[in-house]
Parts: sequence; structure tokens; C-alpha cells
Amino acid sequence: MPVLGIDLGGTKISAALVQNHRIVGETTRVPTPKGADKIIEALLALAEQFKKDKLILGLGIATAGIVNPDSGQVVGSTGNLPGWEGTALKKILQSKTALRTHVENDANASAYGEVCAVPELAKKTAVVAVTLGTGIGVGIIIDGKVYRGAHFAAGEAGHIKVSMDNRRRCTCGLWDCWEAYGAGRGLVATAWEMLENVTPQQCPLAAKRDNLKTQDILDAADGGDVLAQSAVHKWHEHVANGLVTLCHTLDPDCFVITGGMSKFVDFDLLRELVADRTLPRVSERLEIHPSVLQEAGGMVGAAELVLQQALQDEQVPAI
Amino acid sequence: MPVLGIDLGGTKISAALVQNHRIVGETTRVPTPKGADKIIEALLALAEQFKKDKLILGLGIATAGIVNPDSGQVVGSTGNLPGWEGTALKKILQSKTALRTHVENDANASAYGEVCAVPELAKKTAVVAVTLGTGIGVGIIIDGKVYRGAHFAAGEAGHIKVSMDNRRRCTCGLWDCWEAYGAGRGLVATAWEMLENVTPQQCPLAAKRDNLKTQDILDAADGGDVLAQSAVHKWHEHVANGLVTLCHTLDPDCFVITGGMSKFVDFDLLRELVADRTLPRVSERLEIHPSVLQEAGGMVGAAELVLQQALQDEQVPAI
Repeated sequence: MPVLGIDLGGTKISAALVQNHRIVGETTRVPTPKGADKIIEALLALAEQFKKDKLILGLGIATAGIVNPDSGQVVGSTGNLPGWEGTALKKILQSKTALRTHVENDANASAYGEVCAVPELAKKTAVVAVTLGTGIGVGIIIDGKVYRGAHFAAGEAGHIKVSMDNRRRCTCGLWDCWEAYGAGRGLVATAWEMLENVTPQQCPLAAKRDNLKTQDILDAADGGDVLAQSAVHKWHEHVANGLVTLCHTLDPDCFVITGGMSKFVDFDLLRELVADRTLPRVSERLEIHPSVLQEAGGMVGAAELVLQQALQDEQVPAI
Repeated sequence: MPVLGIDLGGTKISAALVQNHRIVGETTRVPTPKGADKIIEALLALAEQFKKDKLILGLGIATAGIVNPDSGQVVGSTGNLPGWEGTALKKILQSKTALRTHVENDANASAYGEVCAVPELAKKTAVVAVTLGTGIGVGIIIDGKVYRGAHFAAGEAGHIKVSMDNRRRCTCGLWDCWEAYGAGRGLVATAWEMLENVTPQQCPLAAKRDNLKTQDILDAADGGDVLAQSAVHKWHEHVANGLVTLCHTLDPDCFVITGGMSKFVDFDLLRELVADRTLPRVSERLEIHPSVLQEAGGMVGAAELVLQQALQDEQVPAI
């Protein structure tokens, strides 16, 4: 029987049935409404839609923000979903849908989805999935299980500190967080800095400087623009710097790179930059590769966690 | 029955009997000789000395370098112990002493010693012990067990990258490693930079600039020297920056700070600096405190790991 996996992001909600570690059938996408009540309504409507057509075993939700997966409550805010903190999501959805529900941080769900979909990864000591998007999210799988830390905030590695001079402010309010450099908006900030005092005659991107989009820079780089290419190279260095820090902390077998920005990663370059900055013992055996599931990771992982929870509950002996 | 704990550092070897999570009797210290053969001779002599007087259950060694604790081999070099890489330490010591032997990275041993000595720590999700000395070593305890990573290099966090401009070279050859800022030699480098173009009339430390010792700076700060105080404050910021990155990766319950430099830490200042730079969800419940065992941590932890290994072996059912 399939499980309904839902990925709740800042701009859209995606929902699909998951069976055998993959999406089966169509993925439904709706825009994320404003406000917690409206989001819950949208989630309930999606659950109803899928329940109508098919018997489903449960409901797995991957959401932005810090989540206590035991209570299913969103315990930490995210700038992308104002008013979401404090929502007792599992309790609400379980009581309204009568479906077994699991709520998980989206980066954790995405990492777990990947180890479910790729059997070799499940046997590894440590797999770290890095979602490169508007921000950076990290999910850590140790011995096949999601590692959540003491306050469910493990892998909030978008906010590791990659510089020390208060150069770039992150949307979280802190300074010099990794995602202010290595995420999509980090690439924009890098190009913006490089375009200072550059005229549109020297580089056509300069005309767009104050309204620069990630895609503008990537297109210009593809078109041979030297400044844009240099910004994209710098972005790879910034991504590498964070991976180096994760290497020297967690010493993973493997990084899985996913998220909207991951399709612009030159993996050979990234591997080279990481190896250059890492102790040989660590980098020699390290693997870095693109995600297999890509944007389906959150849905697959959240759904798989429902199944894992169900199995665990069955193993508890009856009194 | 006690276990012999030995801590092998770059300058000295310390050995003592360990029972009930603490040192019993005297600690013997000898200088670390040069070369792997000579070090092994010194370790064997210490084992003989302690065996002569008392029945001992086993031998636990905490050593600098990356260690495979299953084989007991030193698999990664350390600048402090040239020629040490590749030494099959457990095999040699076990065959020569006939004692059950466990070999562990010193930062890991120190962290494990601390959770053995402080019962509340053993129940935590994650405890991170940070040894601030000439370099920085980190030991990670997850659910009461040493977390070693995929290549036994977890917690090589002295080499997390805290800046991005290749400003300071680390002794490992990489640039801008945490220990190049937050360890004892980091404080020296910071003061050295601040003393550029400063005359001895302006600051007496300037006279010693090219042969500066950590203690000179700490003494000058204690004596009211403004530049030295500023360097010590900067050093606290540098220590905090690394802890922030560990928070946003591992989300520990607690940091235990140990090592020779830890006695110069102003813990209230350090807590404030970390809280300022960390997501509220993480910092609100985070504890940072000095180690209970201090320099005995490596010996206690290595010895406790011998006992843990013995218990594990007994639990394996006989065929």
C-alpha cells in the first residue's frame, strides 16, 4: 500500500504517492498559501484528494523549519513560512485525516529518501545530503538513521560560519552563514559584489546589477562572459568550503547534492576544490555525487519515515 | 581491577591506573622520544612498570593522529609525532604485554572519559569535547558512544575552515583551519598581527613580537595591557566561531572544554559570543562548561574504552 508524501516548501506544496522508495503516479503541485491555517487547509485538501482514489497507509510531511518528529510539532521558525512555528502539525493532520502521520524537517527527509532509494547508501556509516537552493539545508544519516541532534537542529548547516568579518548578513539575521555564499542568493551576492564599478559596456550583466537573478548569471557564464564565469567558479569554492567543514566534523562516506541549484554544479570541479582543502585521509575515500531522487527526495523520505515508524511501533511488545 | 591508561602526546607521555572513571594513584610522565620505535619502547617500559606492582586488566592508549580502533593502527599522521603513521600499535603492545589493548584518538578518548566521569553526560544525545591546546582536537559522543565517522576522522574539527581568504596557513598545510585561530598558536598569530607597526613604547609586547609565547600575551593581558586584552578577546571570538559551526552541524547538548588553553577561557564571555552567533533554538538550551577530568581525560577515556570493549566481547554469544 502506498504512503502519501508531501513536501511543503516556501513557494509550493508537492504531493505524490510513494511505494518501493519511489514516486508512483502523478505529482500534484499547489502554491503555498500564506498563514498556518491556510497551509493546513491546503495539506488536508491534498490528503483528501489522494485518499479518494486509493487506500493509503499514511501521510509523511517534509517541511521547512525545525521539527520535533516525536510530537510532530514545528519547533523552529523559517523565514519562508511566517507563522509556522509552534504548529502541532502531526496532531492536527492525524486527527483530521485518521492517517498515521510523520512530520520531518525537509532536508532530513530528503537525505533519508536518498538512502532508501540507493541501497548502497543505507549501509554507509554517514551520508550527508546537501540541498542547494535559495538557502542550504543539510540532512545527516548515521548508520541508516536520521541524526537530529539534541534540539532537532542538527544539519542546520546553512548557518555554519564560513567567514569572520561580518561581510554578508544571512536572512536568519546572523553573519557569514554558509548559505549567504553557497546558496542561489549567495551566487547573486557574489556577482553583485564583482559588478561594483563595472559598466554595462565591460559586462552586460552590470545593467541588471540591482535586480540580478541566479539564472542571469548562469546564462551569462554559459554565453562566455568572463565575470559571470568567475562568479560561478567562486560559488563552487563557497560550496566546497562548507563541505570541507562538514568533512572535518562528520567525516561522511558520501555527500549527496540536491536542490534547485544542484543542476548547475560542475561535480568534477567541486570534487577537486574539496580535495584541495581537506585532510588527505578524509578526501581520498570521499564520494560527492548528485542526488538520484532530486526534488522527489522530500516526499519519498517523509513517506519512508512513516513506514519506518510503523515498523518500530509493531516491534514494541504488547503488554 | 584497574586498567592502565596512557596518553601519548607530542611532548610527553602520561600514564596512570584508572578505576571507577578516575585516576587512582600516581601519574607517571616521561618525555616523548623521537621515532616510532623509541615511542613503543617507552610505552612498553611504562606498561612493565605498572604491571610489576599491580594486577591490571588491560591497556588503553590515547594517541594523537587518526586511529582505526578496530585494528588499533594509527592510520593518519600528526605533525607532532613524525613517523607514527602506519604503526600497528594495538598488535605490537598486545603481543608484547599480553594485555587487552585499545588504541584511540586522543580527542575521542578525552571526550569518552568525560562522559564516563559525569553520569548526566552519558544520557545526552550529543556531547562534544573540545581540546584547546597547541592545536584543537574534537571528540564527539553520540548516545554515549564515540562517533568516529566513515574514515575514523570525525572530529578533526581543528581543520574546519573558519575564513575564506587564505590568510593563515595551518601546520597541516591547509589554509584558515580553526586551530590556526582558536588554538594557543592562533592567539600568538593574532597578537603578532596586531603588533605590526606597534613600537615597544606603545606596547611592551612589541619587543617580543618575533618570539611571542602564549603566556607572554596572557600575562600582559592580566597586567592591563590593552592590546593583549584585545588579542585575548579576539581569541575568544575565534574559539566561539568554531563552536557555532559545530552547533549548526551536530546540535549538541553540551560542549566540554579541555586542554592546556582551557584554563584561560572566560566561560561567561565564550557563552555570550556563541549565543550571539547561533540560531536561538540551538543556543537557548546549549551548555558550555570546563572539563571535569582536564588532562586526565585521555587516560581515563582510553582505559574506559578497554572495559567497554571487554563487555562487548562478552556479549557476543559463543558458537
